[in-house]
Amino acid sequence: MDIGDRDIGDSPLLTDLYQLNMMQAYLRTGLTATASFEMFVRRLPPGRSFMMAAGLEQAVAWLEGLRFSPAELAYLERSGRFDRAMLDHLAGLRFTGDVDAMPEGTVFFPDEPLLRITAPLPLAQLLESRLINLVQFQSLIATKAARVMLAAPGKALVDFGFRRAHGAEAGLMAARASYIAGFAGTATVLAEMLWGIPCYGTMAHSYVQAHEDEIVAFESFARARPDNLTLLIDTYDPVAAARKVVALAPKLARDGITVQAVRIDSGDLVALSRQVRQVLDDGGCRDVRIFVSGGLDEVSIDAIVKAGAPIAGFGVGTALTTSQDQPVLDIVYKLQEYDGVARRKRSADKQTWPGRKQVWRRHAADGTLAGDVVSLDGDRQDGTPLLAPVMRAGQRVQPAPSLAEIRARAAAELAALPPALRDVTVAGAYPVTIAPALRALTAEVDRRIATHG
Amino acid sequence: MDIGDRDIGDSPLLTDLYQLNMMQAYLRTGLTATASFEMFVRRLPPGRSFMMAAGLEQAVAWLEGLRFSPAELAYLERSGRFDRAMLDHLAGLRFTGDVDAMPEGTVFFPDEPLLRITAPLPLAQLLESRLINLVQFQSLIATKAARVMLAAPGKALVDFGFRRAHGAEAGLMAARASYIAGFAGTATVLAEMLWGIPCYGTMAHSYVQAHEDEIVAFESFARARPDNLTLLIDTYDPVAAARKVVALAPKLARDGITVQAVRIDSGDLVALSRQVRQVLDDGGCRDVRIFVSGGLDEVSIDAIVKAGAPIAGFGVGTALTTSQDQPVLDIVYKLQEYDGVARRKRSADKQTWPGRKQVWRRHAADGTLAGDVVSLDGDRQDGTPLLAPVMRAGQRVQPAPSLAEIRARAAAELAALPPALRDVTVAGAYPVTIAPALRALTAEVDRRIATHG
Repeated sequence: MDIGDRDIGDSPLLTDLYQLNMMQAYLRTGLTATASFEMFVRRLPPGRSFMMAAGLEQAVAWLEGLRFSPAELAYLERSGRFDRAMLDHLAGLRFTGDVDAMPEGTVFFPDEPLLRITAPLPLAQLLESRLINLVQFQSLIATKAARVMLAAPGKALVDFGFRRAHGAEAGLMAARASYIAGFAGTATVLAEMLWGIPCYGTMAHSYVQAHEDEIVAFESFARARPDNLTLLIDTYDPVAAARKVVALAPKLARDGITVQAVRIDSGDLVALSRQVRQVLDDGGCRDVRIFVSGGLDEVSIDAIVKAGAPIAGFGVGTALTTSQDQPVLDIVYKLQEYDGVARRKRSADKQTWPGRKQVWRRHAADGTLAGDVVSLDGDRQDGTPLLAPVMRAGQRVQPAPSLAEIRARAAAELAALPPALRDVTVAGAYPVTIAPALRALTAEVDRRIATHG
Repeated sequence: MDIGDRDIGDSPLLTDLYQLNMMQAYLRTGLTATASFEMFVRRLPPGRSFMMAAGLEQAVAWLEGLRFSPAELAYLERSGRFDRAMLDHLAGLRFTGDVDAMPEGTVFFPDEPLLRITAPLPLAQLLESRLINLVQFQSLIATKAARVMLAAPGKALVDFGFRRAHGAEAGLMAARASYIAGFAGTATVLAEMLWGIPCYGTMAHSYVQAHEDEIVAFESFARARPDNLTLLIDTYDPVAAARKVVALAPKLARDGITVQAVRIDSGDLVALSRQVRQVLDDGGCRDVRIFVSGGLDEVSIDAIVKAGAPIAGFGVGTALTTSQDQPVLDIVYKLQEYDGVARRKRSADKQTWPGRKQVWRRHAADGTLAGDVVSLDGDRQDGTPLLAPVMRAGQRVQPAPSLAEIRARAAAELAALPPALRDVTVAGAYPVTIAPALRALTAEVDRRIATHG
């Protein structure tokens, strides 16, 4: 896939055709005043107690680079769908609006805007598809990874899921989102090159299979890649392979090579880890840690940890990078204000709270989250406001936070979750209330629609 | 995300670190003979009766462009993980191997290889992560889309799912895979620019909300984008809005503008489509078709179609582009032969059939699929062989098929599905047998492993 000199992910044509249709209609009819769109979820995915915001930095970078290339403009002209005024408008289009958002790593709940775009209506409309696409996916994966963190306190967690992520960008963004949520790193090499996310890797079954003898495979691998050495022991029989590790370890140690860990990728991980631990301990390999992988998710990891299995770390793959049990975060991006007047969508089951909003979060004395209030922007409530200015008139108001800063925020958020939201096997509830002035505005908008709609 | 002058999707660093670790070990120990890896599924996802292969063209394009850029090589050197011989090897690496595969659009079943790579072991190993990533995702979505096709014969189906796809590449590849399976097109503009997939788009609720009056919104949109005019009628009350369409249509017709369709995006689609049909018919708008969308999948579409709702087409979004009910296709890529000797993985529940294989498909007299045999390559069976040469020594053996050719194949495959595989509400079974010589080889490999493993 190639669109010339830039990444396909940068293209403003990552949009639905109706956005361009509406742009042309807005331009023709002069509906070009300032609009505010807010991004939020109406409800949590089943089984989720909270969501964690992620993807803002990719969204801001996309907005900063927003431009139509000559090839894209030529294609749009060839399509015959758009008039000259529209094409000229697109040729000069840059993101000139404001962005307010919750920082990445912030925990959020239904009806809480996590991002607001304020810009001329045609521009704000164009952005919807890609902004949702970027933010929903990373938030989905950060949330999944946060749940794994809750299930495995103190364990080393590594993203193994690139191969079954939905394409390259998904695999990379999943590595980033899970690192934000507290994972130690990823197996995906390009994620390390792009973002400095620590990269981990051992060996695959094919390496063992390519040798006639398992212990020969172990030794040749150890000598070729001696640092952070982890040997995969379940190609044939994990317990027998652990005995081979015990036999090999002193020989490697004489050459300065330390077996750091063994990995088990299949079978009954609780039982096998205990048997392998016994073999390693009896063989003087007490410092060799056991790392496991293979079809794991937060629920199975929770069970393994609660069983007290002697496991130091988990590789989490498919279930993480696809958010397999809940692969969809139904984030919407809705017009809340146009030309200073609040708007509201009222279709069956799809109501929204109108106007530009803020979220206020209260904490208990021990720092635990105690409840949120959604208010109109400027209607001060108790607690800390969660949305902060990110861009003004198309420019960042401050430098992008580092991944380390984002990780620190996410860690603090997870540490502050109330007990009811920490159990990965049962969804808990959290109080989000709507401020009186926002309720009053909603009633007023409904009266206006009843008259004119 | 930016890695210089090419798309991130082209990078050979879209791989797991262990692949590079193993490459270095293979190079050091001289395990550089020819290996064959095959890609297959061990079982179908729950509820699926078949899978449809897709993504081969993106895989071949990635292989054709395989090279490490100076920036990538510099990063690998900085990482300190690799020796000079490895870095020099990577600097000159190109794909020099063979590819055999089922053409895109082919229906496949468990244990059937859909793609085989034959190349020097270090090279073949490197490719695993990205090849799986590309092929599993498009096959997952082509299958989901094929199921929607089975549920809605004769209806116009359009991919609406970009925004909740897992990133940009997922959204684009979902547009391609669903078009292969028979969809009329997509809403994603860049998919039309890249591949010529027909693009459809109407208007969103925000367009109506931005106006004080719904009928004013309809008229301004119609005049701004008159071709393929579809009006969204559920921002407030779909039946009331249908009356506005009836009132507006003659006025637009006088100016040569035809309302082609109305779209309903929420509520009870069967009941609403009947009420709206009645209003349109009574108002002389018999040619205005009804198009619906909003949280649809193949099961809900099947129910709507069976209820006889007067609906001409469906927009399918989130459920399609995420394959929401089954977001994972557990494709594996396994070493089957090294240096002329068959190999086999034997971990618990993860056994594979060894050797280089072919799939033979028999058809009944009426063309219906009648059963498959998996054999060793060269062990001729009844029926048609499904894997064909795609690349030899790194070069395509014939030009890439057009999307139209791939669509024609997929349509023929769906038409030939036996009745038991056509019901989207109940999974059906299909006979896949293992040829005697392949069973014999498997037993022989097991005896060898029992001695040496």
